[in-house]
Amino acid sequence: MAQPVLLTGAGGRVGQAILRGIGDEHDWRLLDREPLAADRIPDRVADADLYVADVTDMDALRDAMEDVEAVVHLAGDPRTDASWESVLRNNIDGTQTVFEAAVDAGVDRIAYASSNHAVGHYETDERTPGMYRTDDDYRLDGTEFPRPSNLYGVSKATGELLGRYYHDEYGIDVVCVRIGNLTRSHPPREYERGQAMWLSHRDCAHLFDRCLRADYDFEIVYGISDNDRKYYSIDRAREVLGYNPRDNSAQYTFEGDPRDDV
Amino acid sequence: MAQPVLLTGAGGRVGQAILRGIGDEHDWRLLDREPLAADRIPDRVADADLYVADVTDMDALRDAMEDVEAVVHLAGDPRTDASWESVLRNNIDGTQTVFEAAVDAGVDRIAYASSNHAVGHYETDERTPGMYRTDDDYRLDGTEFPRPSNLYGVSKATGELLGRYYHDEYGIDVVCVRIGNLTRSHPPREYERGQAMWLSHRDCAHLFDRCLRADYDFEIVYGISDNDRKYYSIDRAREVLGYNPRDNSAQYTFEGDPRDDV
Repeated sequence: MAQPVLLTGAGGRVGQAILRGIGDEHDWRLLDREPLAADRIPDRVADADLYVADVTDMDALRDAMEDVEAVVHLAGDPRTDASWESVLRNNIDGTQTVFEAAVDAGVDRIAYASSNHAVGHYETDERTPGMYRTDDDYRLDGTEFPRPSNLYGVSKATGELLGRYYHDEYGIDVVCVRIGNLTRSHPPREYERGQAMWLSHRDCAHLFDRCLRADYDFEIVYGISDNDRKYYSIDRAREVLGYNPRDNSAQYTFEGDPRDDV
Repeated sequence: MAQPVLLTGAGGRVGQAILRGIGDEHDWRLLDREPLAADRIPDRVADADLYVADVTDMDALRDAMEDVEAVVHLAGDPRTDASWESVLRNNIDGTQTVFEAAVDAGVDRIAYASSNHAVGHYETDERTPGMYRTDDDYRLDGTEFPRPSNLYGVSKATGELLGRYYHDEYGIDVVCVRIGNLTRSHPPREYERGQAMWLSHRDCAHLFDRCLRADYDFEIVYGISDNDRKYYSIDRAREVLGYNPRDNSAQYTFEGDPRDDV
């Protein structure tokens, strides 16, 4: 039997996309700060072990990580206008606690949910809206120094720094996914930026599945679908992770779309 | 009369190098967590206004920043083996408080003491000790993604992220100086790494003087002397700041060296 995967923030939007997409591909432990409502536990993970804990609680994290193969760390304050106090505690301190507990528990791999807001200020007045359009070849590729668009973005970029440190110091495999605009059924309408960084639910689930299966050391990749409009390169995700997205915001049809079922 | 410059962490090693080198070049306000001992207030800054405050104290910082031209932000836990709890509070939260107070006070410029430990894990087993030697052309130039060597380094790199954000969001001029190995009188003996990243006291003072006078937007530069051995480029500091170091660890003579007087 494969070792389980711990999913922090299991009740959040990204966690739900993952569980609904690849719930039966791994043996999950689901951790959230609040007990998960029944509708947040899809049938395919009905047997998962449930943990209720704050990610700043080192002892609880160590317990939850015992004998796990990998951690998918999503927990944190997801609000782009979150206060400094909140992101300092929930996102920065929480992520350090996750990495430190992983070292203690001997976890080999962590996939970390970073955000497009870690690099949001690359979208300067000079570059926009041109960079959102298909005839513009401006690309961020994950090697650039972050330019956070808000304090939430600062906290997400700090999580990447922590990932880099824990990889270099302890050899844990770490992948940071700068998640774009995740929506359940269809890409944002009449919002060029959102279409350029759209990530469908099924591509999101597939991408994190690749994060759990591929071989890598430390990576920062962009988590978007294969949109015609894009200013994030997905080359690295394709090459290193074997990411093979199926969706494209330009090809969305608003009726009978299969993504509604994901 | 020129507006004053606020120096946080005035009693620390970098602060003392700055005050002893360029104390009479600016009108200083000196802030430290503890009252400065008399021997930490050089004659040339005997008239400086003194502030005793923790850098996590927003109200105290706002008061200290009233009508200042610029802030040189050095305060923080300087220990490379400092605990996460300490660097989270003193370095990360403290630096965010400094930037936030600067916005409130209308400060236009902040020079921030980052560290070589923000990028210490570039010194891999494969690259060392070759990268410390003069026949090796490996260089970091300040554009690279950080690779912190410890949690102190994570905190220093997070300060850079905060600087990037506060520059992009509020237009404050920010320069981050990744300070090398600062020693008072002579470079470290028989320590190749320390010689490669040596920063003399007088070059340190001159570099921060340039940070207070030059025109820039957001910069990350390396703070080292013009050592023959080097793996940090000082090209950017020369070009943008007009940094013109006078010292070189290879040229040090151990007797009667003028640096002892700086």
